[in-house]
Amino acid sequence: MEEPIYLDHNATTPVADEVWRQMLPYFGAGMSGGAAGGRSRQYGNPSSRHGFGRAARQAVEEAREKVAAAVGAHPSQVVFTSGGTEANNLALKGAAAWLKPGTLAVSRIEHPCVTRPAKDLRRQGWKLREIAVDAECRLDLDDLERTLAESPALVSVMLANNETGALQDVAAVADKARRAGALAHTDAVQALGKMAVDFRALGVDMMTLSAHKIYGPKGAGALIVDKRVELAPLLSGGGQEWGIRSGTENVPAIVGFGAACELLPGRLARVLQEGTGLRDRLEAGLKKMGAAIFAAGAERLPNTSFFALPSVEGETLVMALDRAGFAVASGAACSSASSEISPVLAAMGVEPSLAKGAVRVSLGQENTAAQVDAFLAALGGELSRLRSMAAVMAV
Amino acid sequence: MEEPIYLDHNATTPVADEVWRQMLPYFGAGMSGGAAGGRSRQYGNPSSRHGFGRAARQAVEEAREKVAAAVGAHPSQVVFTSGGTEANNLALKGAAAWLKPGTLAVSRIEHPCVTRPAKDLRRQGWKLREIAVDAECRLDLDDLERTLAESPALVSVMLANNETGALQDVAAVADKARRAGALAHTDAVQALGKMAVDFRALGVDMMTLSAHKIYGPKGAGALIVDKRVELAPLLSGGGQEWGIRSGTENVPAIVGFGAACELLPGRLARVLQEGTGLRDRLEAGLKKMGAAIFAAGAERLPNTSFFALPSVEGETLVMALDRAGFAVASGAACSSASSEISPVLAAMGVEPSLAKGAVRVSLGQENTAAQVDAFLAALGGELSRLRSMAAVMAV
Repeated sequence: MEEPIYLDHNATTPVADEVWRQMLPYFGAGMSGGAAGGRSRQYGNPSSRHGFGRAARQAVEEAREKVAAAVGAHPSQVVFTSGGTEANNLALKGAAAWLKPGTLAVSRIEHPCVTRPAKDLRRQGWKLREIAVDAECRLDLDDLERTLAESPALVSVMLANNETGALQDVAAVADKARRAGALAHTDAVQALGKMAVDFRALGVDMMTLSAHKIYGPKGAGALIVDKRVELAPLLSGGGQEWGIRSGTENVPAIVGFGAACELLPGRLARVLQEGTGLRDRLEAGLKKMGAAIFAAGAERLPNTSFFALPSVEGETLVMALDRAGFAVASGAACSSASSEISPVLAAMGVEPSLAKGAVRVSLGQENTAAQVDAFLAALGGELSRLRSMAAVMAV
Repeated sequence: MEEPIYLDHNATTPVADEVWRQMLPYFGAGMSGGAAGGRSRQYGNPSSRHGFGRAARQAVEEAREKVAAAVGAHPSQVVFTSGGTEANNLALKGAAAWLKPGTLAVSRIEHPCVTRPAKDLRRQGWKLREIAVDAECRLDLDDLERTLAESPALVSVMLANNETGALQDVAAVADKARRAGALAHTDAVQALGKMAVDFRALGVDMMTLSAHKIYGPKGAGALIVDKRVELAPLLSGGGQEWGIRSGTENVPAIVGFGAACELLPGRLARVLQEGTGLRDRLEAGLKKMGAAIFAAGAERLPNTSFFALPSVEGETLVMALDRAGFAVASGAACSSASSEISPVLAAMGVEPSLAKGAVRVSLGQENTAAQVDAFLAALGGELSRLRSMAAVMAV
């Protein structure tokens, strides 16, 4: 049976073969058949003093250098976590623990792993202020000014939205936040690997990254932290990661994260060269079918297309496309919550009836023009089928 | 170059080949050469609705059943985490968030990922009560009674100590705790795979497990939670794990955890058959060299030997043995803190001069009698060398 065509790279990506090859020795298994290229097994605990431990420690530190280099940070600013969710929780709750409870400001289109911790903090006396976005998923700069006039202690605005792909001018947000005396955090999970991401240039105090969105493994992420920021750990114990994140390091996943970061410049060069060609091809076809493209007027990630076809439920379409061999998303991935209308589209003021039709295609490095064309053909077929069924039902 | 002999299985274990084979399809890489046995790539996000996502979801749920079955729990009681440290933090901080601040009681020999969160909770108004142990690393039952008379809200006592291997009668502790109106938690990370561990029989409300101590991968652990216990999440976001632990599931690591649990009955049968033969052989040799064996009078894990040789520093010995090709530990592994005297030995009242000599050997399934003999020979050689050096220095 042929493998379905995967068009859901904002949800997760496969591990790249080169990444996997670098991870392999750190499991201590599966090394027969020359897959590890003659390297020895290094399954030690990085806290151990013997050779196995030292090799694991060295691998973690090399990965830290690679992650730092990929985003213009210093290795000492990289705190490894189990993923983006943990890094976002650490940023908000960890920073809040050192601050006097005040106002926490986040955009209305953040991922739940920013909005939920923000809401959790209300129980500890924090006030939550949500910053509006416009109909194109762009931060409302007037509302940002009003928010900053309320002297928030911490501001979190994502670099690229996971659903629409819309980009925010985080450098400007960080600059304004700093002038207003607030710490600035950005969730760069969806941006990394799809555009240049530079910690210093963005000027934020904290930035969240995840490995499994950039052809690295699940189970590794990082919070990049300016050393001036004091963070209380969420996970305390053995004192790993400068005491900010205890727990035996997930060595293979961290090594894979480093390897995936090392591959980023090459991938970004291809992204720049190819531009939005494949997505434009997709969206031209979608528009012919009458689709509305969300945030089409915003600067967007080059791989993401979030759209709706009038009077067709997104969920229904996703399941029909799945049967036809195409993996796409109906709303926010990375969330077990479901079938409700996307809070991102609600924040953009999209009509609920249209929002219900939302489908997201997020392209990846292995996708081709032929696959896009096949997807459009399948979508067209499903649309005809669903609409003829609806016509029959309406009779 | 020959691989050194690994004798540090309480720190971490290599991933078993069979575990690794089951994990492989979930990376989406490295599937050439038939290593995956013809299975297809399943790198999806379990929250996705398409086939990739459903396959990942099914793999996570199958792993949940395997972990539950290994410890006599129901699958709905298994909350996957990034490892033992996160599970211990979740148990203590998550339960405390739902309770009125009161007294939290933990034994004096807990792993730092229990004692640190316990200390963290003092900032939220909790009182920390540490329960004493005797010279053999056994819980002081009189001090337990005195502690329970103080009506603690939560009691945490580990099943097996990571350094000495000493076992506690956690079933009795849990029974007494329940009668005193306290929730009971046990850290079973070191016990799992080395003795029978049964959640229901222990009668605790919460139990911590880790995959990488049982020939599973780093990056997966679990908190087994009785459904009557209310837990606030440490990591909130997409709502995975019933909202108790958000974040994209680390699918390959969770699959590996399940596979490692599935292998436990076979391993335990071997452990029971072999008994403490290999360790007895080791300790007989150690005693001939004049070693003091810590907690020798306690019931202990069959694989663990924690000892000291008078007037030889443990750290020095570990480094010398490392050069000779043997990987052992000097004190608590899983901890970046170092060179201080083991808090476990301090709690047991061991003289600091002797505690400084502490060395831990923790045997694993691949170790042999020949390796133990080779280790003893190497240790004897290093001892002679170090003592003759010391004699020269003392002249």
